[in-house]
Amino acid sequence: MAESKNLSSGITRNNREMADGRTIRYYDTANQSRSAIDQRPIEEQPPIGELRLDPLVNEWVAMAAHRQGRVFLPPKELCPLCPTTGDLLTEIPESDFEVVVFDNRSPSLRPPVGDWALPDKVGPDTDLGTSAGKCEVICFTPDHGKSFKSLSAQRVRTLLEAWIDRTEELSLEPYIEHIAPFENRGEEIGVTLSHPHGQIYAYSYLPPRVEKMLAAANTYYESTGKVLFDEIVAREIREDERIIARNDRWIAFVPYASRYPFEIHVAPLNPVADLTGLTTQDRDAFPELALEVMKRLDGVFGIEMAYIAAWHQAPVRVGRDVLRLHWQITSVRRAPGKLKYLAGSESAMGAFIMDMRPEQSAAQLREVII
Amino acid sequence: MAESKNLSSGITRNNREMADGRTIRYYDTANQSRSAIDQRPIEEQPPIGELRLDPLVNEWVAMAAHRQGRVFLPPKELCPLCPTTGDLLTEIPESDFEVVVFDNRSPSLRPPVGDWALPDKVGPDTDLGTSAGKCEVICFTPDHGKSFKSLSAQRVRTLLEAWIDRTEELSLEPYIEHIAPFENRGEEIGVTLSHPHGQIYAYSYLPPRVEKMLAAANTYYESTGKVLFDEIVAREIREDERIIARNDRWIAFVPYASRYPFEIHVAPLNPVADLTGLTTQDRDAFPELALEVMKRLDGVFGIEMAYIAAWHQAPVRVGRDVLRLHWQITSVRRAPGKLKYLAGSESAMGAFIMDMRPEQSAAQLREVII
Repeated sequence: MAESKNLSSGITRNNREMADGRTIRYYDTANQSRSAIDQRPIEEQPPIGELRLDPLVNEWVAMAAHRQGRVFLPPKELCPLCPTTGDLLTEIPESDFEVVVFDNRSPSLRPPVGDWALPDKVGPDTDLGTSAGKCEVICFTPDHGKSFKSLSAQRVRTLLEAWIDRTEELSLEPYIEHIAPFENRGEEIGVTLSHPHGQIYAYSYLPPRVEKMLAAANTYYESTGKVLFDEIVAREIREDERIIARNDRWIAFVPYASRYPFEIHVAPLNPVADLTGLTTQDRDAFPELALEVMKRLDGVFGIEMAYIAAWHQAPVRVGRDVLRLHWQITSVRRAPGKLKYLAGSESAMGAFIMDMRPEQSAAQLREVII
Repeated sequence: MAESKNLSSGITRNNREMADGRTIRYYDTANQSRSAIDQRPIEEQPPIGELRLDPLVNEWVAMAAHRQGRVFLPPKELCPLCPTTGDLLTEIPESDFEVVVFDNRSPSLRPPVGDWALPDKVGPDTDLGTSAGKCEVICFTPDHGKSFKSLSAQRVRTLLEAWIDRTEELSLEPYIEHIAPFENRGEEIGVTLSHPHGQIYAYSYLPPRVEKMLAAANTYYESTGKVLFDEIVAREIREDERIIARNDRWIAFVPYASRYPFEIHVAPLNPVADLTGLTTQDRDAFPELALEVMKRLDGVFGIEMAYIAAWHQAPVRVGRDVLRLHWQITSVRRAPGKLKYLAGSESAMGAFIMDMRPEQSAAQLREVII
């Protein structure tokens, strides 16, 4: 299982096997050797969960009943995402690291065993499926007290390379249809570990929101011959007032019809289907813009904002010509003491009500001095 | 504007005009006269908000920027949903009431002025619309400290009659396409007023989740000739293990593919498109079951559960033969100190992960001694 690989920009990847058979991948910039052994006792892995169709809306729901008991906001001394030191044996056997990606210990989705197929959707008569897929954890830094915006540009570049590498490898799995790297930050949105980290969810089905984005993009393409997301970016550039940051290769804007008080979409100006399509220039220009965006977000109220930052990519096998890579950052914080909640209209009806004009939140984000 | 009407079961409705022109409707069981005058100064009403298309998913987002400053958890002495007493001039001019419905003071959706039409959806080239519709507040009791489950059966019957009456009247408005009465309870989900109350949202467009339910029901009907929801109820009755309460006219179950730790769907056994279709027997049999369900929900952990309880009805003009009335109650509480949050997978991708088997939550709900 131990394996080394050279990625772009002098970044290397070292794979190691963990005690229970999971894989950990070290992404490094100085060609480090990573040979520390996971000393922990082996735990039994729960079986793969069920996949049930919600026939009312024709959407899959993954059942991961074993996740009820997972670790909840442990103190810093017991953080499983810190490097292993002395008596504390964590998820990362090395005593230091740059960026690591390892298989989630309590995954919502698991690689299937043996033959696997998604059942046909036939309402309440749909067969029970299994929650096939893969869930990985990505640590941005060994430093427990940092956050994304305080990473160095080099570290963000390594992080991007890790996201790209994982997208490339996971795309090769026959049971994976969609790959979504995301970061949840803040106890307000239920984050159970405060160490700076993200997750990578690789689904064996198209997530409902992706399915809807695909349908919208297909409809638009059929009626106009144009790619929807490219036209959206063109409109934002034309109207200009919602752009909050840009450089030669990337643009960041508050979308015209934002759903959250602070919502930012970040896109490469040279459109690509997924992370693997980014050119070296795109990759090298990302850290500067990403750090600026996150500093602007935390600067609005001078507090750490709770957010979800999710990469939207084209699915692995469909929609590659009509969907485009972009990064959606959404924050439910509408004022220092106030959150936006998804209640009756948003949650039960799916109808979003925005309490703030997107142009106002764009102005507040632009005014932050960074 | 003052007007009286006899509804079913001896319930009467008295309409009165509020100081600023809004309407308040008193639903009573003893033929009370309601003549108190709203003594408050007139406030200027903000204009109707924008309706913008989110082209990525082809969904409308209502912009209600004026709602930022609305009242947030006032102390009991200043509650605007209590009856007017002495110096406290509230939204309800009478010194007592049973059930009242009044036009929301900070509505997300407003009746349109003059000609009104929903723009065609053409991606980022879609015209700007206006957030047409109507938002009403429904108070369940004058007693600030009560909750739904502590209402009398007679009061729940009056409440149901008010929901039915509002559905009937709002359905007549040419700009209204869908009517959703719901209750949000609990600070955990952002409730800003703790007085027992609900809301009625009447949309000028199909809410995205309703649109999706309609598409699923149409597809199922086309391929099987059967009504989807009827088959769902039939499956729940056949499998039995997720049923938590029933009587002669109604059934309550945890759905097969629940999305929330505690989710309950309540449906009449005699299927109807919307609240107005309920027979007298259905109406009279509802309070008993509704109260049992809410007592079971609060009984699971012995605490007041945060929940959203939303009526799903067929839209006013479409899908009347394939969509069915039911009441969806969802709670994000998964344990006394733990909530389920919608983060990366649910919020960004729309892919729900359930941490608990629906059969387990049904068993917990059934075990509550009421």
